[in-house]
Amino acid sequence: MKSDNKILLSHGSGGKLSHDLIGEMFVKYFSNPELVAQTDSAILELSQKNIAFTTDSYVVDPIFFQGGNIGKLAVCGTINDLSVSGAKPLYLSCGFIIEEGFPLADLETIVKTMAEEARHAGVKIVTGDTKVVNRGKCDKIFINTAGIGMLHKDKKHISFGTNISAGDKIIINGSIGDHGIAILAARESLGFESLVNSDCAALNGLISEALKIPGSINFMRDATRGGLATVLCELAKNQKSGIWVNEKDIPVKEIVKGTCEIFGFDPLYLANEGKVVMVVTKEAASEVIKILKSHPLGKEAVIIGEITENNPGKVVMQTEVGGRRVIDMLAGEMLPRIC
Amino acid sequence: MKSDNKILLSHGSGGKLSHDLIGEMFVKYFSNPELVAQTDSAILELSQKNIAFTTDSYVVDPIFFQGGNIGKLAVCGTINDLSVSGAKPLYLSCGFIIEEGFPLADLETIVKTMAEEARHAGVKIVTGDTKVVNRGKCDKIFINTAGIGMLHKDKKHISFGTNISAGDKIIINGSIGDHGIAILAARESLGFESLVNSDCAALNGLISEALKIPGSINFMRDATRGGLATVLCELAKNQKSGIWVNEKDIPVKEIVKGTCEIFGFDPLYLANEGKVVMVVTKEAASEVIKILKSHPLGKEAVIIGEITENNPGKVVMQTEVGGRRVIDMLAGEMLPRIC
Repeated sequence: MKSDNKILLSHGSGGKLSHDLIGEMFVKYFSNPELVAQTDSAILELSQKNIAFTTDSYVVDPIFFQGGNIGKLAVCGTINDLSVSGAKPLYLSCGFIIEEGFPLADLETIVKTMAEEARHAGVKIVTGDTKVVNRGKCDKIFINTAGIGMLHKDKKHISFGTNISAGDKIIINGSIGDHGIAILAARESLGFESLVNSDCAALNGLISEALKIPGSINFMRDATRGGLATVLCELAKNQKSGIWVNEKDIPVKEIVKGTCEIFGFDPLYLANEGKVVMVVTKEAASEVIKILKSHPLGKEAVIIGEITENNPGKVVMQTEVGGRRVIDMLAGEMLPRIC
Repeated sequence: MKSDNKILLSHGSGGKLSHDLIGEMFVKYFSNPELVAQTDSAILELSQKNIAFTTDSYVVDPIFFQGGNIGKLAVCGTINDLSVSGAKPLYLSCGFIIEEGFPLADLETIVKTMAEEARHAGVKIVTGDTKVVNRGKCDKIFINTAGIGMLHKDKKHISFGTNISAGDKIIINGSIGDHGIAILAARESLGFESLVNSDCAALNGLISEALKIPGSINFMRDATRGGLATVLCELAKNQKSGIWVNEKDIPVKEIVKGTCEIFGFDPLYLANEGKVVMVVTKEAASEVIKILKSHPLGKEAVIIGEITENNPGKVVMQTEVGGRRVIDMLAGEMLPRIC
């Protein structure tokens, strides 16, 4: 497969070129016995019957950016969705929709990244699909991943947040908005692309460390599209709890703050791809922070607020200038195709 | 949600409009407790640890055609991939990529069809994702489904075909090429759209009936992209077996034959969306045919050939005119975006 080659419609035909692509690209890099079998479905033997199952499609534009590419997003995003549900991510599926004429070398870069991320996170890509559409009928490449994770039996409540109660602390593992600004910078060629990296990362390692503290974590969610604000608003609404956050405790990089001011964005709503919001018991909060800080992806972990009895269903932010602001869900669209 | 409304970029933002869409469309029609929870991952309790896991993206053009639409394809296709692996399909994920401006009424039609097909097949759509891309950056709508099925323990070999042996009969449950020609007719406005229906159907009911005959089925595969020819070529190659088929026994509708002649297509390579190829023991063949024929989707089930000792790795067809032809995998692309 020569690197100057391009994707042809025949690569999606199910015929000979499809087989070559599967063999020379997907099986080569994703290599594992389940995928190599090339059966219609991957045949898996799980270690238990309680699972988490999730999916996301990735349409990020541009497909390559500082700190990652669409393939890294696709693997990490689904790993994170499983992890925040209190599950250990194990298996991924992968569906490519590729525009005719897409460079095979770019596909190889993306596939290599996916393989590396999966290996690093201890996850296998066991089944997949490739469709090719005519030139102009999609924008370069879209990737869907679905994932299966083994659910820790006593962690079932975590994705619902049913156990949260007033006094619980809200923790985030680092600065918000990095991914959003990295994409904006790459898309608009703002000239400071090198100054801000997407935070795109698989959080399963970090989260599994935190889960070791028994009974400490009452809720987790990764703050992706819609940002930190959306996670907090959903939780407040679903659990009819009040949420209070302190603006000055929410980590935002200077470059992110500055870019937001120029473009009229609010970092609270910017997408992240490596940030988890945790609600933990008051008693365990400092221990959780300590554990998070000892992991490379949690060095800046910090308490940003707490669950309150008052203002049920609402998120209230203490602003840096001393006022109070009710945080609502994102009404419009700040940055389309952010992930 | 008014029917003259259109999909906006904000429907994919993760914010308020995304939530409205999820609530008023997906949760409404796909309604089940796992989905209603709207957690990052669906939390499932399986009945056993042996599973099949598969995915497919659907980019069919046009999205509505005689006998189905892209949503029906997306549900049935993944159900069929699980079923031919000897698994009982249970859970689906669903990822939409939608073009800005896509009519909400069309989305509703598609989602309704998906819900109906899933209900009919006894399958739940438990987790999903929606991305919206700017106008012109995808063609109307693409859908990915991934699926989980419970694997019948003694059926593990079926998707590999490791148990096939010379003398085994090759069965198909009806005529080939209907889906391919239905799409072609709809796409090219050939004027005979009403004469040929896509065979798009969930085959899990039919297959589970056939699986009740113990030890009879040594291989199954649905003949989708690449058609019957590709299924047979893959099996011959992977198992280093010879395959012999008799052209006159392969059911092809007259309208399909005629259209193929005009367009220079070969029905052997045309896509099907409701056809399963089975390899069954010589002894069980007539019993399997009987069972298939008693099901609405198997009325035209027929033996079309057998596994042979000679010509290992090759598919040889006895032609209607009395000659022999070696069948190879599809080299190019007959009809892009067929599924």
